Amino acid sequence: MPRRYAFRRAEEATHPDSIRATLAEFISTFIFVFAGEGSLLALGKIYKEPAGTTASELVAIALAHALSFFAAVSASMNISGGHLNPAVTFGTLLGGRISVLLAVYYWVAQLLGSVVAALLLRLATNNMRPVGLYVTSGVGELHGLLLEIVMTFSLVYTVYATAIDPKRGSLGTIAPLAIGFILGANILVGAPFDGASMNPARAFGPALVGWRWRNQWIYWVGPLLGGGLAGLVYEYMIIPTEVPHHTHQPLSPEDY
Amino acid sequence: MPRRYAFRRAEEATHPDSIRATLAEFISTFIFVFAGEGSLLALGKIYKEPAGTTASELVAIALAHALSFFAAVSASMNISGGHLNPAVTFGTLLGGRISVLLAVYYWVAQLLGSVVAALLLRLATNNMRPVGLYVTSGVGELHGLLLEIVMTFSLVYTVYATAIDPKRGSLGTIAPLAIGFILGANILVGAPFDGASMNPARAFGPALVGWRWRNQWIYWVGPLLGGGLAGLVYEYMIIPTEVPHHTHQPLSPEDY
Amino acid sequence: MPRRYAFRRAEEATHPDSIRATLAEFISTFIFVFAGEGSLLALGKIYKEPAGTTASELVAIALAHALSFFAAVSASMNISGGHLNPAVTFGTLLGGRISVLLAVYYWVAQLLGSVVAALLLRLATNNMRPVGLYVTSGVGELHGLLLEIVMTFSLVYTVYATAIDPKRGSLGTIAPLAIGFILGANILVGAPFDGASMNPARAFGPALVGWRWRNQWIYWVGPLLGGGLAGLVYEYMIIPTEVPHHTHQPLSPEDY
Amino acid sequence: MPRRYAFRRAEEATHPDSIRATLAEFISTFIFVFAGEGSLLALGKIYKEPAGTTASELVAIALAHALSFFAAVSASMNISGGHLNPAVTFGTLLGGRISVLLAVYYWVAQLLGSVVAALLLRLATNNMRPVGLYVTSGVGELHGLLLEIVMTFSLVYTVYATAIDPKRGSLGTIAPLAIGFILGANILVGAPFDGASMNPARAFGPALVGWRWRNQWIYWVGPLLGGGLAGLVYEYMIIPTEVPHHTHQPLSPEDY
Repeated sequence: MPRRYAFRRAEEATHPDSIRATLAEFISTFIFVFAGEGSLLALGKIYKEPAGTTASELVAIALAHALSFFAAVSASMNISGGHLNPAVTFGTLLGGRISVLLAVYYWVAQLLGSVVAALLLRLATNNMRPVGLYVTSGVGELHGLLLEIVMTFSLVYTVYATAIDPKRGSLGTIAPLAIGFILGANILVGAPFDGASMNPARAFGPALVGWRWRNQWIYWVGPLLGGGLAGLVYEYMIIPTEVPHHTHQPLSPEDY
Repeated sequence: MPRRYAFRRAEEATHPDSIRATLAEFISTFIFVFAGEGSLLALGKIYKEPAGTTASELVAIALAHALSFFAAVSASMNISGGHLNPAVTFGTLLGGRISVLLAVYYWVAQLLGSVVAALLLRLATNNMRPVGLYVTSGVGELHGLLLEIVMTFSLVYTVYATAIDPKRGSLGTIAPLAIGFILGANILVGAPFDGASMNPARAFGPALVGWRWRNQWIYWVGPLLGGGLAGLVYEYMIIPTEVPHHTHQPLSPEDY
Repeated sequence: MPRRYAFRRAEEATHPDSIRATLAEFISTFIFVFAGEGSLLALGKIYKEPAGTTASELVAIALAHALSFFAAVSASMNISGGHLNPAVTFGTLLGGRISVLLAVYYWVAQLLGSVVAALLLRLATNNMRPVGLYVTSGVGELHGLLLEIVMTFSLVYTVYATAIDPKRGSLGTIAPLAIGFILGANILVGAPFDGASMNPARAFGPALVGWRWRNQWIYWVGPLLGGGLAGLVYEYMIIPTEVPHHTHQPLSPEDY
Repeated sequence: MPRRYAFRRAEEATHPDSIRATLAEFISTFIFVFAGEGSLLALGKIYKEPAGTTASELVAIALAHALSFFAAVSASMNISGGHLNPAVTFGTLLGGRISVLLAVYYWVAQLLGSVVAALLLRLATNNMRPVGLYVTSGVGELHGLLLEIVMTFSLVYTVYATAIDPKRGSLGTIAPLAIGFILGANILVGAPFDGASMNPARAFGPALVGWRWRNQWIYWVGPLLGGGLAGLVYEYMIIPTEVPHHTHQPLSPEDY
């Protein structure tokens, strides 16, 4: 959101647009994590055993994440850019499309939204303990880390191509759908191995409220590496160089 | 639909646009409830036991609701605003975007559409008794109430952000999809606990025709609380204050 | 496609636009029936028993129909209006939006497309006999007929609202998706009762190639009644009367 | 992408737009194959037996392919035209919409993207051997070949109608969705018979990395025949002849 650069830092910190964007990130991340983690608890309610151990459970989990991420990204796209994910914010930060200050605001809002979602889930399900994400037996932490890197690369690359690239044209209309659906597709791949987070905020709230910290680091390091890489690759290799970036006319958040 | 404010009340009550919008709400709610409740009966036909007790049944139910709600919202979006849900109408009423009179028209049409859908389902399925919604064992009514509040908040927040916000831009094109899919995602969370209504009309028709009133109140109080809260939050905290609401040029129903 | 009215009949019969539209109906109906009926054969290949007797089979069938109908409607929307269904053509004929001659062309193309799809399926699956549609035990033919009427009403009402209504605006962009998805939702309802056709062409090809004519009449009478009713209701009750229909500027097929 | 014709060959080979488009094909094909083949490995992780032998596995596989193909086509549509498939490139080559040189670039990029995806999957899953595609027992290779021809015809016809036809209008916005979803629908048909590739690149990478070459030829001959046929039919029979092709104003890659 290049327009932010027009703000001086002190002004940006209290500008209504910054506050509003941060609030939108908080609420949309809340909506997403409530549905995503909630689908694990719903399957736990049905089967009384770890979710995701059959193909139909896998489909239910992938759809809950894909559909809610799509809707929540749509709901915040024109307010905050629809990140809902510290790795997306990190990728756009490396690409120079958001200020450090606003990125920090977003990160706090995303983590907080996830925590509140996990708390309300615990309350509404008569104290079921959030399941969260972990590496399953038969695969090592480094395999999970690699999966998170690759899958988050796919996710953030899709964000960049459909929602940020100045040449995206009318495809920007379906950007939230592409973003939600690549998340869902990757969950169908990664969930049986490592839970398929691609998002530190998705992992953090349930881990805190369920107090399960096993493998937590890979859900931070992996997505930040993969998302950062995607931001750099797209910004510097795919976006045309003949139209220098700094001469673009500023995008308003609505165009973002 | 601010343009309505130009009507005097007596005139609005009989204006062709009001009649047409009310008819569209009736038919679209009918289409939605027929598919949603019908999917429960279809699973009852296959399994002869309560629907939704396996992950694949859960997916079938969530898809039937999501796909039909999306289609029915699309079919009425430009005529009536595509509410199909008293909680959505209530949220937009609190936000000042619909008159009390038209809201009452909509509520009656939505409830009637649901009742007719349930009646036709009973007739077409050789008198299968509609299943409706209820809180499952292991969770209390207050848990179900909290679930309804939170899930309807997500739904109406998404409605506001994608279909009402004057800054929604081209994302308005996919608004019905975002609305239908957040409904589907939330059903994947809430159905095993309380049936996941988020909509008094969805709950009312099958309850009347199947004469099952257990827990009915939570499907009214929860969605109205959650939907009303979402309307207030979005209208007064997210929609920019620097462009005062009353100076917007009136939206025609087509733009809504 | 009002522009057709400018043709005299003899001219229309051989006009390249008519030929091209008819060819598009043939190919798109072929694509749809190949995927729809094909999904039944695929499940027959897996399970060696009638398809659709579990929730996950039901989901597979509904998705195959919904996704392929969406794609095939998209692929012909700007050429022929994307009917792929004699009931849709009949509804638009009653609404006065297509000439009788072109409607006959479309009907022949749709039935032919379905037959060729069923033939190629039989060839490609090592002579598996197409399954087709029938009323299951426990429901009577009149129940099936009523289901077909109601479900086709929903389908054609959605077609009218999203793809034909002159006030559809930017929602026309997602019309094929709404049309494909209401088909899918209704299959999740109707398949366990009567196979859920909503389309005489869908029923005809597999019936001919598999030579199974049981209950065939309900898949003709039901969809034509329901589709015709939807066309009349939408054309004369929902489309605004203050802008008389005959003063609209002619729509080109692209705008249709 | 007719604009390419303005290049002389030597220039085109090193033009930044060609390099960028080729890179986009590589990355998007990588994203797609990682999710598609990955979903087979994920089911292998759950069940320890060949994937796709139940309806719910079939749904998981179809969704993984459909959702990721949609997202990856979206992400490259405005850069390279979003082929991700040598059969699509071949169809557009026969239709005269891409130069031979760029087609060769694309083919190499697509095959390479698939190989890298299969390699990373093997690494990330603790050395699981890619499953790839093969003809199942009870059907012959020629049946599989016919299936590939028909299904790829559907796919490339949809690509042409929604993403290339100059009359596609606003439906171009949902082209990637139609393309991804017809792929998914056809997988629900073809997977139990021959794996349902429709794409030589999809078949090649896992075959190389898993070293399984059984039936490989049908995944090359079938898609190229079906895709080529679709390109010829659409280009010369559906696209209006009254507006000669060579007088179109050149499309920029963004419009493609």
